[in-house]
Amino acid sequence: MTVRYFEDFAVGQKYLGLGGCAIDAAGIKAFAAAYDPEPFHLDEATAERNPALRGLTASGWHTASITMRLLVDSELRPAGGILGLGVDEIRWLRPVRPGDVLRIETEILELRPSESRPGQGIIKVRTTTFNQAKEPVQIVISNLLAERRAA
Amino acid sequence: MTVRYFEDFAVGQKYLGLGGCAIDAAGIKAFAAAYDPEPFHLDEATAERNPALRGLTASGWHTASITMRLLVDSELRPAGGILGLGVDEIRWLRPVRPGDVLRIETEILELRPSESRPGQGIIKVRTTTFNQAKEPVQIVISNLLAERRAA
Repeated sequence: MTVRYFEDFAVGQKYLGLGGCAIDAAGIKAFAAAYDPEPFHLDEATAERNPALRGLTASGWHTASITMRLLVDSELRPAGGILGLGVDEIRWLRPVRPGDVLRIETEILELRPSESRPGQGIIKVRTTTFNQAKEPVQIVISNLLAERRAA
Repeated sequence: MTVRYFEDFAVGQKYLGLGGCAIDAAGIKAFAAAYDPEPFHLDEATAERNPALRGLTASGWHTASITMRLLVDSELRPAGGILGLGVDEIRWLRPVRPGDVLRIETEILELRPSESRPGQGIIKVRTTTFNQAKEPVQIVISNLLAERRAA
């Protein structure tokens, strides 16, 4: 797959993920046990009784981490790998439930040279995570480092 | 531990995490293998050669997930558990490396009633994650749901 330098990116370009990630109850509970052990992420009966959730849902941080995995495996291939400086926004739009299959699409929003790192640029991207019904479940806007082509 | 309702929170209150989370190379690599499989999160030699990293570092999403775990275990105990609507910002300020021990402090930034959910309010919090040298490694600003006290 083509590796891209900062100069190869342009605002408005879209990059697809190359695969999907299937979600199951065991995976939701395992992530939650390690990182987000609220009872409604660990137990179906507790989750059913929660009026905001109405059933087992993945931790938002699980969805965000899966999204990163799909991004690393996507067509977006900045030289040097994907190294994030930070995130401008995450919105969790819909619950992620057992049986869902998540896919991503990433759009380039902004490009700017790095002031502190002359050999690198910063690309701002919006990554939307969709379920199998093509409904968006999460949007994340992040700032990634990309190497510049040697002069 | 006291469970707090929306009315019990006030802007400027600070809540401490009750424990620390020790980081080791095996944990960094295991998280990265699942969610952020860039070579510089998986292999010490590759990480040493990366001029922006100069050694093995945790995925930012690993730091964010550990921060969520420390938040769930912290003095901040909104009734109904911690349920995030989204994140306004994440900044990864310093690398997180094997041997680090992470702790958190959370400050209440804003409080507002939920327009769509009459029984709930939204609390905006800033959670700072520190290493053992008390240097901040991550800041995250997030919006959490909290139940209102029954009238």
